[in-house]
Parts: sequence; structure tokens; C-alpha cells
Amino acid sequence: MKSDHIVRSFDEDLQQIENLVSRMGGMVELQIDNSAISLVQRDVELAKAVRADDRKIDNLESEIDIAVVRVLALRQPAAQDLRAVVAVLKIAASLERIGDLAKNIAKRSTVLGEFRDIGASANIVKRMCGLVQEMLKDALDAHVTRNINLADDVRMRDVEVDQMHNSLFRELLTYMMEDPRAITPCMHLLFIAKNVERMGDHVTGIAEQIHYVVSGSLPEEERPKSDVTSLTAISSGEAAAGGGQAE
Amino acid sequence: MKSDHIVRSFDEDLQQIENLVSRMGGMVELQIDNSAISLVQRDVELAKAVRADDRKIDNLESEIDIAVVRVLALRQPAAQDLRAVVAVLKIAASLERIGDLAKNIAKRSTVLGEFRDIGASANIVKRMCGLVQEMLKDALDAHVTRNINLADDVRMRDVEVDQMHNSLFRELLTYMMEDPRAITPCMHLLFIAKNVERMGDHVTGIAEQIHYVVSGSLPEEERPKSDVTSLTAISSGEAAAGGGQAE
Repeated sequence: MKSDHIVRSFDEDLQQIENLVSRMGGMVELQIDNSAISLVQRDVELAKAVRADDRKIDNLESEIDIAVVRVLALRQPAAQDLRAVVAVLKIAASLERIGDLAKNIAKRSTVLGEFRDIGASANIVKRMCGLVQEMLKDALDAHVTRNINLADDVRMRDVEVDQMHNSLFRELLTYMMEDPRAITPCMHLLFIAKNVERMGDHVTGIAEQIHYVVSGSLPEEERPKSDVTSLTAISSGEAAAGGGQAE
Repeated sequence: MKSDHIVRSFDEDLQQIENLVSRMGGMVELQIDNSAISLVQRDVELAKAVRADDRKIDNLESEIDIAVVRVLALRQPAAQDLRAVVAVLKIAASLERIGDLAKNIAKRSTVLGEFRDIGASANIVKRMCGLVQEMLKDALDAHVTRNINLADDVRMRDVEVDQMHNSLFRELLTYMMEDPRAITPCMHLLFIAKNVERMGDHVTGIAEQIHYVVSGSLPEEERPKSDVTSLTAISSGEAAAGGGQAE
């Protein structure tokens, strides 16, 4: 019996697993896009498709996990090879989480469809999703090409997502205070925006893994973090005065 | 030169890594507790300590990752041993996430300290934290004793956390609609409650990893999921009528 394992090299095995990661990444990119579109266009069918497709991403993660365990057992890789294999596990886990977050956005879009137009805010979310999707695309490229500079660049770009999140957060709180009918839709938008902000964090984590694969250590430089929403407080007085600064 | 690696067995190496996981788990248990206490007792100093201690948990995760990579390289474990090592990576990642969520709760508690008493709702959050902490304790025990039944039991208990989250979520939305001054504190509480719900999901993930270590496959049975908050809509009319059913 001809065995693949003997004929193939470790590099080919790793390549095959990393192809699975690229495929998974491509699916997740699409899910981010589609969840944003379902939100802005109030497209219930698209939201349903995003929710259904999440299972495919979960299945790919399982497939990657199994392939990783197999290659560890059969090939016993060392040094950079081992790092590359371990990183794949972590990258796949991050992709799975981003997929979950996109699914959650799609879920909430469905509910938001029942409310009056939440126009401008939804568009800001869509722009945030666009940034995250670009970051993810570049991270996946950096993974394939082992481009540490590109990975580091992705890591630094998350601050833009955080900043958009901060300003949207304050805006939504203000709307809620001005009009109680806006509370439920704005609250879902707050959670959606938080999900996008988390997506950015996960892409950053992927970029850090790539840095680790190439250099052998995680990036030491503190990453600029600027999500301050968990410290944001707006009083109803401020809202009446049209918003203002807090923390 | 006497080498530890040659004298020690794989089992001892694994034991040592799993001890690190137990320590990390113990720290995370404490962080969950303390974040809940800082919330209920409006204890800004305790909240600060929780935020500071998160770094210790992060450091332990790095230590575990390094130890895992070393044991994979030196021991080339197979079958159940390999599963145990891979599971440790995933469990440590989940613990790190739970720690992050506790830190986030502590952050938001600090902001909530500036608002009027949010009494009853904070107590419900504390009870949710208590459930999650019990689940985590049992999951850590199940890990040490390789008790698959206990792990499966933990997995099933997450539904209670979800249910508490659902009812708290509706309650908080109602408060927000009744009084605009409640919007900012209730919104932080909504995010805190969501964090606790996520903690429960991560503990469930840990329980699934333990099932995998012992049996060789992830649990097949669908886990009862009942977090429906992303589909919850409450209109201001309902709020005026003192709450009601939606969804």
C-alpha cells in the first residue's frame, strides 16, 4: 500500500494545512462583508445565509485541528516548523471566533430590520467592517508570504477600528437618551459595533501569530489600544446638550 | 551536565504543564469572584486590582504555550498524550479570554461606581458569576481527574447562565426605556452581563476539550443553547406597560 505520509514532505503537509487556513480566512472575509451588507441593506435573506454558512467555517476549523494533530504526531516538527504548526491552530481559532462574531451581527441585523431606519450608524459599522476585512486580507497574505512587516502593519491598524468604535459608541448612547424608541435598535447596534471591535482584536492576534512564526517571538512593542468605551459615561444632561466629552 | 529532559518522563512534563493550567484556572476563578464583588460593592480599589492582576494570567498563558511547544518538540507525544498537550493550549487560551472578560467587568464597575445604585441587577450579575465560577471549578477538577462525566455536566449547566442573562437583558432594556438617566449604567450592565454569558461559553469550551482528551472526540450531542438576547426586541410601549414578551 502506497502511503501519502511517506511520499510527502513535511513542507507539503504544512502547505496543505495552510491552504485550509487560507480557505477558512477567505470564507471569514466574505462573512464579514455579508454581515455588514445584511445590516445596511436590511437584507434578512442574506443575514440568514451568513448564519447558515458559519457551520462551514466551524467545520474547517475542526478539519485544521485534526490535520495539525496528525502532522504533529507523524512529523514531529521542530523549531520554526513547530511554531508554524502551533500558530496555525491559534490562527484557525481566531478565524472561528471572527466567524462567530459575523454570525452574531447577522442575527442582530435580522432584529434591526424590524425597526425604523438606523441609517448613518449602520454605515459607520459597515466602514468598520471594511477596515477589519482589509486587515484580515493583509494578515492572510502576510501568513502565506511570511511577511513580518505586513503583519506588524496590520497590528497597528487596529487603532483605527477602535477609534471609530469609540465615536459610534458615544453617538449611539446620545440617541438612546434623546428618544426611548431608539433604545432597542441602538442597543443592538452597540453590540454589533462591539463585535466588530472584537473582530479587529482577533485579526491583531492573527498578525501577532504570524510575527511569532517568522521571528520566533511575539511582538514586544505595546500595541496602541484605544477602545475606551468600557470607560465611557454620558449623562442625560450631556445628551440634551448634544453630546460632549466624558473620560 | 545533568539534563532534566532525560531524567524526567513525558508524564511528568505533562503533569507540570497541567499544574500550570490549574494555577492559571485558580487565578481566573478569583478574578471572576473579585470582578463581581467590585461591581456589587462598588469597590474601585478591588476593580483596580483585578485589572492589574490580569497581566499575571496573560504571563501564565505564555509560559504554558512555551512549555507545550517544548514538550511537543522534545517528546513527540502520540495519541492520547498528544491530545492532552493540544487541549492544554486550547484550555489556556480559553482561561486567558475569561480573565480578559473579568478585567473588562472590573473596568466597567469603575464607571458604574459613579452612578446611583444599580442594586438588584448587579446582584443578578453576581449570581451569574457565581454559577460560572462553580462551572470553572468543576471543569478544572474534571481536567485533573480526567472525569468525562463531570466535564459533560459542566457543559450542560451553561444553559442556566444563558437563561439568567436573557431575563436580566430584558429587565435592563425596560429600565432604560423608563428612565433616560438609567441608560448609561444599564448599558454598561448589559455589556457586563454579556461578558459573563461569554465566560460561560468559554468554560463550556474547556469542558469540551476535556471530553476530547478523555474520549478522543469532541462531544457530538448538541449543547442546549439559550442565549436569545441577540434576537430580543422590546418596544417602548411594552416598557411603559411594565415589560412584556418579545422575540
